[in-house]
Amino acid sequence: MATDSLVADLTSALSNIPLIDPHSHIDPLKPVSKSLDDILGYHYYTELAHSAGMSQAALAKNIPARERVREIVRHMDRYDNTAQYGWFLDIARTFLGFTGDRITLADADKLFDAAEKTFAQVDWEKQVFAKTKLEKIFLTNEFDDPLEGFDTETYVPCLRTDTLVFQMDKPETRRRLAACTGVEVSDAASLRMALAKLFMHFTRKGAKACAISLPPSFHPVPFDDEHFYEQMQFHDFHDLAPGIFWMIAESCRDFRLPFDLMIGVNRRVYEKGVFQGQDLFDQRTSLIQYKELFNAFPDVTFPVSVLTSAQNQELVAYSWIFPNVLPNGHWWYSNTPPYIRKDLTERITAVPKTKLIGYYSDAYKLEFVLPKYSMYRRLLANVLADEFVRPGVLSEADAVALGTRLLRDNVREVFKV
Amino acid sequence: MATDSLVADLTSALSNIPLIDPHSHIDPLKPVSKSLDDILGYHYYTELAHSAGMSQAALAKNIPARERVREIVRHMDRYDNTAQYGWFLDIARTFLGFTGDRITLADADKLFDAAEKTFAQVDWEKQVFAKTKLEKIFLTNEFDDPLEGFDTETYVPCLRTDTLVFQMDKPETRRRLAACTGVEVSDAASLRMALAKLFMHFTRKGAKACAISLPPSFHPVPFDDEHFYEQMQFHDFHDLAPGIFWMIAESCRDFRLPFDLMIGVNRRVYEKGVFQGQDLFDQRTSLIQYKELFNAFPDVTFPVSVLTSAQNQELVAYSWIFPNVLPNGHWWYSNTPPYIRKDLTERITAVPKTKLIGYYSDAYKLEFVLPKYSMYRRLLANVLADEFVRPGVLSEADAVALGTRLLRDNVREVFKV
Amino acid sequence: MATDSLVADLTSALSNIPLIDPHSHIDPLKPVSKSLDDILGYHYYTELAHSAGMSQAALAKNIPARERVREIVRHMDRYDNTAQYGWFLDIARTFLGFTGDRITLADADKLFDAAEKTFAQVDWEKQVFAKTKLEKIFLTNEFDDPLEGFDTETYVPCLRTDTLVFQMDKPETRRRLAACTGVEVSDAASLRMALAKLFMHFTRKGAKACAISLPPSFHPVPFDDEHFYEQMQFHDFHDLAPGIFWMIAESCRDFRLPFDLMIGVNRRVYEKGVFQGQDLFDQRTSLIQYKELFNAFPDVTFPVSVLTSAQNQELVAYSWIFPNVLPNGHWWYSNTPPYIRKDLTERITAVPKTKLIGYYSDAYKLEFVLPKYSMYRRLLANVLADEFVRPGVLSEADAVALGTRLLRDNVREVFKV
Repeated sequence: MATDSLVADLTSALSNIPLIDPHSHIDPLKPVSKSLDDILGYHYYTELAHSAGMSQAALAKNIPARERVREIVRHMDRYDNTAQYGWFLDIARTFLGFTGDRITLADADKLFDAAEKTFAQVDWEKQVFAKTKLEKIFLTNEFDDPLEGFDTETYVPCLRTDTLVFQMDKPETRRRLAACTGVEVSDAASLRMALAKLFMHFTRKGAKACAISLPPSFHPVPFDDEHFYEQMQFHDFHDLAPGIFWMIAESCRDFRLPFDLMIGVNRRVYEKGVFQGQDLFDQRTSLIQYKELFNAFPDVTFPVSVLTSAQNQELVAYSWIFPNVLPNGHWWYSNTPPYIRKDLTERITAVPKTKLIGYYSDAYKLEFVLPKYSMYRRLLANVLADEFVRPGVLSEADAVALGTRLLRDNVREVFKV
Repeated sequence: MATDSLVADLTSALSNIPLIDPHSHIDPLKPVSKSLDDILGYHYYTELAHSAGMSQAALAKNIPARERVREIVRHMDRYDNTAQYGWFLDIARTFLGFTGDRITLADADKLFDAAEKTFAQVDWEKQVFAKTKLEKIFLTNEFDDPLEGFDTETYVPCLRTDTLVFQMDKPETRRRLAACTGVEVSDAASLRMALAKLFMHFTRKGAKACAISLPPSFHPVPFDDEHFYEQMQFHDFHDLAPGIFWMIAESCRDFRLPFDLMIGVNRRVYEKGVFQGQDLFDQRTSLIQYKELFNAFPDVTFPVSVLTSAQNQELVAYSWIFPNVLPNGHWWYSNTPPYIRKDLTERITAVPKTKLIGYYSDAYKLEFVLPKYSMYRRLLANVLADEFVRPGVLSEADAVALGTRLLRDNVREVFKV
Repeated sequence: MATDSLVADLTSALSNIPLIDPHSHIDPLKPVSKSLDDILGYHYYTELAHSAGMSQAALAKNIPARERVREIVRHMDRYDNTAQYGWFLDIARTFLGFTGDRITLADADKLFDAAEKTFAQVDWEKQVFAKTKLEKIFLTNEFDDPLEGFDTETYVPCLRTDTLVFQMDKPETRRRLAACTGVEVSDAASLRMALAKLFMHFTRKGAKACAISLPPSFHPVPFDDEHFYEQMQFHDFHDLAPGIFWMIAESCRDFRLPFDLMIGVNRRVYEKGVFQGQDLFDQRTSLIQYKELFNAFPDVTFPVSVLTSAQNQELVAYSWIFPNVLPNGHWWYSNTPPYIRKDLTERITAVPKTKLIGYYSDAYKLEFVLPKYSMYRRLLANVLADEFVRPGVLSEADAVALGTRLLRDNVREVFKV
């Protein structure tokens, strides 16, 4: 990546744009970190430290937070080449007053203390919003979330449907569904009614999207009511995922909610991995599996994230052809600089610019929005410089306008916020 | 992309090379556009405009051309980031006297009028050839094309075999085949004879290649004569594609024609898409499906295009190992700058340079040859600069010679023109 | 690739690091070339020349070496754009006093004579070690190699297990196994004992790794003893590959040897190709096939090479999550500059740096270690400059330290040499 004055200027201009972050896992009741343990407990650090040799003993609940932080920091000299380490360094510098070049074990206690003090400020949440220039951030809410106790204008609800689709065969799911909707699901009609109640609840509370993560082999299919009945009555609700998914797409259509698809994750591949550090993928998947879906729901907007960069060309092509398919951010294993650079360059030269949702943080704590978006803006500035400004296609001002579209305008238009 | 003086010099030198375009869909009886509607009716514009929100109402036959053009141009501010918009801007500047920075609705009528006037010139076809430095261009002819009424030295015939391979089960195909060959196909022998007559006709008219586009799942297999007989007599000519394809490869061998394979397209994925804007793909395909074919026909040259950039490494490796496999241009969803840059760099550092067919326009109207090749030459100049000149591997003159090989020499040698 | 002073400085610094090459096919009893025929007989040259049109007649045993060399060199003007030609040019310049810009037929005899004289020097092997700054190099030994007659400190033995896994159904394999272990394999217990004897022999002789190359479809599975018995007694030892592989992994665990997996090759795809120039691949493969293996052997280190760059993201992600999976070098069809640059950039920004085994030569003759590592170091220097030094993430000295880790430190630590 060049870091000349053009890129610096573009980065600086892009940094002034207030952010609307369209996907995160923030808990709006505990949106910011209480201690450095909340920061370094993020699975990226526990899994990199573990992958580099750290025993999982340090992650046990009974280990004091300070000790756990020490252990994760102690291993940083094994993974301080990674983008994720870079996010932490950015957090340490921006929020915790760190001024060194590299974080090592010697810094662990100082940083822990600084975090304790900093995060204890009564207006810390407000400070993070201000420093991040964050305006709104989307949540990912379980279907029975009461969505109470927070400002839904700032923390935008989003209905996560993984449990409904993939765990309806668990009695606990059906119990929770009955508890929050008053509907005992026993056939297609009652499931439809339960979903309607959920969507009603969520949209009344200001939800702006529905979302789901899907395994590489997933293939949505509409099921007829008889099939639902048969499976529910005689097969313990098994094997209903494709059909429940399809019914949720119908609800998205009826309630005019975009349906975020996050495609490609295999859960629990590394069975003894750290918490949230067990999931991987099979690159052999295709958007052709969604052909029927995209055709059947022309009125539903599908912002699509793919887990692998190799699938980005499919995402580009499907977004270029289907009006209702949009490329959405850079997810997980594709959320590092080389993949973002490649995937973004491919998208921004081939997909209508009004359809490009540039980025989301996927953050669990608000402090991560800033370093993740900073990384993205640097890469976006580089791509704008290389593909548009240097070849004389766009002026600097127009390039910033294009970047603004990816960072903000399209989020507002697509999700109607 | 850098745009320094080295790249500018290389681009300029490459721009002087007269072109032989080895693949297009030009109608030699109507090779140039009559109105701007012919330009913007190209599926890239209708599909991008539709993908960005344009209703298909504007594409109906009864809508006046001027209105349709306005509608497509009106949506350009949603897709003016794309490479395809760049081609149109190039056409407007080069052929229509456009001098602005960006084309918007305000320009639609002026451009429409300019096109009407410009395209009406009696020597317009000649002018386009001259401005494009175009020497010859390959066609893609249906099997029953009489190949009459045009100069086959300039418009080089090429036998397209998609219909023969994939639609022999339609009575209409067999009727057309009988009409142009005098042979009623009823078994392997008569099919062989019909093909021989077609190849005779085409080669006598100066055809220099045979071509076909293939779905990702396609696997060529030789069928024995009994199997042909059985399927033709008792199963309505169904499921014969692998065997007919194989027999066409035999004809290519016997008539010494290269066989262009364009691998990877799924037809009609977006069923309600615009004309020619319905096809997509499944990235899960492999050249291993062509193992038997490449082994069985050492004397047939197979210029291969792949639809996805992820398959480019297979194309590189198969071309590096098999003498009869050659990488051919940058097709469709891989014909944008990031994919060309990547795929070209991978090919030019690993495949013998005498086997690299750099580019083809795939154009439906001659006006598109210039902007598409201009894009390619800029990318080729960049790759030559980065991989060969800057590291001191080649002098500028030698780099231009290498570029000339990709742009022209190999087309002449491979297709014997 | 930029070739500015930063990259030049980094390349120069990296060139001072003594090499430990963790994978080669060197015959320690004939480690260096005797004639230019040994150099140009390397499959890269025979296959590129053949792919570019050279008949295989020149490769027959009865053809004099000088003539064969002439023929291969004569075709170089068809493939002098390739990275492999670059290695040969480097060899000619470094070892044979060549001073020209490009090697053509006119140079063949001079180079042949120079090679004859140069390679005949009694200390030639020593000279190559010195010029290459080579300290140790790993071998790939057949299971019945006596490992005698060479210094195993310099030429580090490595147990190649392809034959054991994939050819146990050949009586010849079992005969050889019985001959070197004294064990007639007839069931799981005797196979286990034979393997134990092999591992004992190899580790006593200083072996530091076990290795195997695997087809894209391979899926390791543990077989129970009954299944071994059944297949061995009643089915001629057929279909045992997954289970034998699994048992070898158990031996790696018991004898604490890393197990190099080289994933993705299909053998004999081009059936009439030159010697060692017949193998290709099917891109449709996934590391998910190794899920059970990686989970079952947490104590075995698996340095993994993948044949295709598209699979690199899987390798990055699996290495980031599994402590026992490490990315290992750049193999075969991915061992050219564009793929190395891409795959290295993806790895070095996401996988803990202590897990990155940067490169191996895969060489058959020692003279190739130098040009291959030179290519890699230039690419590594570029990546370090672009991803770390220019963006201000690392100082030049720290970048060199990171490069040293990939080139040397990790080889020492992972393989305990």
